[in-house]
Amino acid sequence: MKTFSIAKSRRLRSTPYTSRIEEQGVTAYTTYNHMLLPAAFGSLEDSYHHLKESVQVWDVAGERQVEINGKDSAKLVQLMTCRDLSKSKDGRCYYCPIIDDKGGIINDPVVLRLSSDRWWLSIADSDVLLFAKGLAIGNNFSVNIFEPDVNIIAVQGPKSFKLMEKIFGEKITQLKFFGFDYYDFKGTKHLIARSGWSKQGGYEIYVEHTKSGLDLYDTLFEKGKDLDVKPGCPNLIERIESALLSYGNDIDINDNPLECGFDKFVNVDSDINFLGKEKLIKIKSEGVSKKLMGVKLDLKKINITESIDIMDENSNPIGELRSGCYSPYFDQVIGIAMLNKPNWNANQAIKIKINDQAFDGKVCDLPFI
Amino acid sequence: MKTFSIAKSRRLRSTPYTSRIEEQGVTAYTTYNHMLLPAAFGSLEDSYHHLKESVQVWDVAGERQVEINGKDSAKLVQLMTCRDLSKSKDGRCYYCPIIDDKGGIINDPVVLRLSSDRWWLSIADSDVLLFAKGLAIGNNFSVNIFEPDVNIIAVQGPKSFKLMEKIFGEKITQLKFFGFDYYDFKGTKHLIARSGWSKQGGYEIYVEHTKSGLDLYDTLFEKGKDLDVKPGCPNLIERIESALLSYGNDIDINDNPLECGFDKFVNVDSDINFLGKEKLIKIKSEGVSKKLMGVKLDLKKINITESIDIMDENSNPIGELRSGCYSPYFDQVIGIAMLNKPNWNANQAIKIKINDQAFDGKVCDLPFI
Repeated sequence: MKTFSIAKSRRLRSTPYTSRIEEQGVTAYTTYNHMLLPAAFGSLEDSYHHLKESVQVWDVAGERQVEINGKDSAKLVQLMTCRDLSKSKDGRCYYCPIIDDKGGIINDPVVLRLSSDRWWLSIADSDVLLFAKGLAIGNNFSVNIFEPDVNIIAVQGPKSFKLMEKIFGEKITQLKFFGFDYYDFKGTKHLIARSGWSKQGGYEIYVEHTKSGLDLYDTLFEKGKDLDVKPGCPNLIERIESALLSYGNDIDINDNPLECGFDKFVNVDSDINFLGKEKLIKIKSEGVSKKLMGVKLDLKKINITESIDIMDENSNPIGELRSGCYSPYFDQVIGIAMLNKPNWNANQAIKIKINDQAFDGKVCDLPFI
Repeated sequence: MKTFSIAKSRRLRSTPYTSRIEEQGVTAYTTYNHMLLPAAFGSLEDSYHHLKESVQVWDVAGERQVEINGKDSAKLVQLMTCRDLSKSKDGRCYYCPIIDDKGGIINDPVVLRLSSDRWWLSIADSDVLLFAKGLAIGNNFSVNIFEPDVNIIAVQGPKSFKLMEKIFGEKITQLKFFGFDYYDFKGTKHLIARSGWSKQGGYEIYVEHTKSGLDLYDTLFEKGKDLDVKPGCPNLIERIESALLSYGNDIDINDNPLECGFDKFVNVDSDINFLGKEKLIKIKSEGVSKKLMGVKLDLKKINITESIDIMDENSNPIGELRSGCYSPYFDQVIGIAMLNKPNWNANQAIKIKINDQAFDGKVCDLPFI
């Protein structure tokens, strides 16, 4: 596949760590929330193996925060998501599909409840801030909405616990999954969550104090030498094997949360008020007509830059492949596909065409493993 | 400067023309509204000279449309912009700053009035669709808001008139600046505006019928051979020399339209209703404290990837350089800068530092020429 350079400009914002990752050998970028997000440090497959065995430090500042605070903040956050947050607690993260009045997904952030009237939406790639602003203005809510200066460093991989313990002490290992708290680094408090966009374990450090954050970034590499720490980034192979969905790739505004396997976050039976509730009640009672599924293909290589049509054995179109990669674990290409009803049976035979050549495959359940 | 590749995926959407421009030699991409936007075909300077002398065809599908139609569409569009649209006409384009309730700029689209209850906002790089949706839901407006399948081809340069005449006949040359109409191409009607993101003259073809659009794309190259037609893209040098502002580069949500020289589109004296009106009335009466200005620097080369601090002669910070390039016309670096009051006098001496080296320069008025 031909490669093309990325034309940098102020509009594709650098992060506080950009100069560091460029010294450390980043080779490819994507953009995320109008910001540079590293996409590769050389071979994706080498990074994949390293991530599963060791520990990596990621510049994921592109996961921007939308802060919503003020008297009506809880009301506004709840209005935007079909997940019931009425029993949410301070110091906890909540994965929340953000939906519009039609039930279409606008984003799938992790919502951090800092307090009952102060929230961060740690967003995927769409301007949730503008949606929240529009809703707040239209509803005359008493809230402040802005993007705080927060630049996340993720520490991911099985050895992340050991590395973080070296810096923050044993108590960081007691932080529960999707919990967060403030931890001291040389006199500066950092919000740290046990979370991250891999299934290999780890933390996300929500850096609000850039100078201390840069010192911390460097310290992670110093203290991690004997753990074979390396710079990294969300890994396409690992995230697909783990079925971590990517907004814009696997999901878009034309999909509803029931089509994306988010059933347990579609709390239509609660008495909370959120956009698209009636629509989702109707969809739930009627059932969905398309659904995200896994596929395995008799291929050893794929580069997905746009949706690829999927056909059944008789060459009828039945859906589209939205992301995919060669999986070292399965030794074949795996992918995430939106498939029309009733093509949801694991092992159903499928076909795709790439450059006019047909390849066979099978439907499978998500997650793959 | 080191270069990095762009990691393609479905999330950075391809356009109908992507495969064509990749055959034609695109070398760099940026992203724009979650879509690939070509940023270079080899040398920027060669493209600049060619654009000023001849004609280029640009894939600017990343200039997405937000369609707003329905009973309350005019009300919603007006609510979002400080430009008075009460006397707007069908078939005309209007450059409209979109602002929030604080007067901060959210986007600066060209608004096309298709009819009194059907509008397209041809947007810069931010999700105006989500802002419009939030406002419409909150205000309970009767509107439909969606991104139609429109992929613009721009034909730019002094010979664009000749080329378009060859394909659409003489009447296309009678289209007035910022007017649009429908023109026939082999039986398919295409909306064509006399507009484009250069000051070299030309058209934008709002392709709604992809198959015909691809045929048209190829025809532009066939019929343009004797006019030395080439593929191109918005050119950094030409757009800065012409002082065409770029949202995200020169302008962001922390700027208001009076700081960006949009005074004539800030119609606070009309009786229309728009967001941030009171705020803008106050700002107008008090005067702004920062303003976009031009700068000329004693440099022959620059690569701007983030804001660069600007100092006065005594090294006091007075603003920031937001975009810039080497200008063949002035034979030095020129740029667009946000400068604090009172540093707005043309010829005022300024300094910037790049890699700890200081360079001298001068303030100048916009546009440069």
